[in-house]
Amino acid sequence: MSSTLELTRALIRQDSITPRDEGCQDMMITRLEDLGFTIERMPFGDVSNFWAHRGHGAPVLCFAGHTDVVPTGPLDKWDSHPFEPTIRHGHLFGRGAADMKASLAAFITASERFIAANPEHAGTLAFLITSDEEGVAADGTVRVVDALAARGQQLDYCIVGEPTSSQVFGDTIKNGRRGSLSGHLIVHGIQGHIAYPHLAKNPIHLVAPALAELAAEVWDHGNDYFPPTSWQVSNIHAGTGATNVIPGSCEIKFNFRFSTENTAESLKDRLHAILDKHQLAYELHWALSGNPFITAPGALTDAISQAIVDTCGVTPELNTTGGTSDGRFIKRIARELVEFGPINASIHKLNECVCVDDIEPLACVYEKTLHTLLR
Amino acid sequence: MSSTLELTRALIRQDSITPRDEGCQDMMITRLEDLGFTIERMPFGDVSNFWAHRGHGAPVLCFAGHTDVVPTGPLDKWDSHPFEPTIRHGHLFGRGAADMKASLAAFITASERFIAANPEHAGTLAFLITSDEEGVAADGTVRVVDALAARGQQLDYCIVGEPTSSQVFGDTIKNGRRGSLSGHLIVHGIQGHIAYPHLAKNPIHLVAPALAELAAEVWDHGNDYFPPTSWQVSNIHAGTGATNVIPGSCEIKFNFRFSTENTAESLKDRLHAILDKHQLAYELHWALSGNPFITAPGALTDAISQAIVDTCGVTPELNTTGGTSDGRFIKRIARELVEFGPINASIHKLNECVCVDDIEPLACVYEKTLHTLLR
Repeated sequence: MSSTLELTRALIRQDSITPRDEGCQDMMITRLEDLGFTIERMPFGDVSNFWAHRGHGAPVLCFAGHTDVVPTGPLDKWDSHPFEPTIRHGHLFGRGAADMKASLAAFITASERFIAANPEHAGTLAFLITSDEEGVAADGTVRVVDALAARGQQLDYCIVGEPTSSQVFGDTIKNGRRGSLSGHLIVHGIQGHIAYPHLAKNPIHLVAPALAELAAEVWDHGNDYFPPTSWQVSNIHAGTGATNVIPGSCEIKFNFRFSTENTAESLKDRLHAILDKHQLAYELHWALSGNPFITAPGALTDAISQAIVDTCGVTPELNTTGGTSDGRFIKRIARELVEFGPINASIHKLNECVCVDDIEPLACVYEKTLHTLLR
Repeated sequence: MSSTLELTRALIRQDSITPRDEGCQDMMITRLEDLGFTIERMPFGDVSNFWAHRGHGAPVLCFAGHTDVVPTGPLDKWDSHPFEPTIRHGHLFGRGAADMKASLAAFITASERFIAANPEHAGTLAFLITSDEEGVAADGTVRVVDALAARGQQLDYCIVGEPTSSQVFGDTIKNGRRGSLSGHLIVHGIQGHIAYPHLAKNPIHLVAPALAELAAEVWDHGNDYFPPTSWQVSNIHAGTGATNVIPGSCEIKFNFRFSTENTAESLKDRLHAILDKHQLAYELHWALSGNPFITAPGALTDAISQAIVDTCGVTPELNTTGGTSDGRFIKRIARELVEFGPINASIHKLNECVCVDDIEPLACVYEKTLHTLLR
């Protein structure tokens, strides 16, 4: 069994449901200490985090990731226990297999091999690991980055081990992410009996033209790095259940995924303007999950792309689609940041798995990238 | 204590929550048998109904009503027990006090007084009483009317004892009701992750412009007897609760209250046309609660209006607003039909009540109407 596979299995055995770490970071730290890393544990609240570094000065290359996993869902729906790593049909099954314990294991074995061959490597190799990426993400990477920024720590290159591959291992590198801005809208009307509509104000009727306008709005056209900004309603609820009552309010939850052609403020302003144009009485609570960030093609994207071509024979695409990740926090102190990892088709689902044959190549891609950037 | 108040109290003591009668009809029947009425009990399923008549031939004047009441709601929120009639501050409190046990009692005492004075009255005095008006209304008046229609029974005049008064006792007679047509609409989209909107179809976005158009539609302008047809959404629900998921469908419940300027079919056609114009994929289930009906001003409205003026010094308004009633079933066999009863402000609520000083005048209005029409 390959050493990366072995470590992946050992990590999966720890039921590190967010924000618990359950000893995963200890396993990593033991290996890193053997390599001469300086370890700095940085727990915040009930979240385990650590920062580790080896070598001196620039360039600083940091592997970033999380040991926590999402909940399993119903155990009886899994074909094997989510915390008992099991190989079937060439895949390793277990919660966190793809998101992102295989990547954590590959970070470690890639570093071991690289350091064995280059004990006096250039610059600094670092790790930034949290157990709070899948949860509220308040006491994890964001706070470690705060601490690093406060002491002036900059990263030249950061590789986040998120599972970015789509159809084939190696096909996708994320070189940025869209921003995410959520809103919770409550439109007020006046409740009443449906037989006496003149005594009521139906909030569903009042909001419908505004919703239609918002759904049709072109927020921007995107740019070279980002698809157009998207606005989507996830939930709409109004009504008492009774079919003869006009409800008093209508509740709507929506989300922007936005490009660098807009800002959170510009989107808020434009949305408020549409609501106000329709003269709605409303409350609106905003939550900004992350601003968009981008790493233009350069040394890091070149190095990891070439490593993928050499290892897998696949030419990766750079894109910025998909959900948020801790990259949004790290980019603040990272000159270049990409995310790269295994196929993400099974993540957050029952029977999460990673292809066994992709695990060593993943370590190989990370190792080759180290050779290029810290040679 | 007046005999009408006494009988109202006796009826309130029976907890005849729909569709139970709990002996209310027996109380009425005993009194009617004493007056020489022929009684025909017409139970269907678990619903008690009766038809009673006295006299011969035309004109046939029928008192119609229901002994069942709506549920009480939380007992501890009532100031006195809903089935223990209690007088406070000039009001008689109890479930069914206004809807419609005071009217049932007034039907009886009005008939007793009228017959005492006119034992050989003209035409036929009849009663059509059910215990299934507040519930599904499937085994009540609608089935009695079926049976009466099958034997060719026609009514010249029908007075339904629904509480129609609004601000002041006597201010409102209903001489018809709007139709009521309900729809349950399910608009289909394609569920997906909010970060990948191009892989999903958001049913909320798809339906919003159609909703806006439906809310703005002028269905008709009403006519001399009816306000304009009204379309109202009572419930809209879409969303899994998760804020990062585009839901797969959007569920909407709506209701038309419609005038005689439209029919159920014309409204269905027009609504389907709007949904189809927006190219929605949908299911739509219709339920017709009742077609609109109207009694043009004539002998019955004149007689009861004059009785109200003479008794209360109030000139009643004829209107057709408000919810449905069993009038929609009876109108099929009734040449002229009105609804008249006490103030309806407290019906279907906690602490339902009727003004004690309105109870004898209610019996008096009914009695005077009998004098006019069956003289």
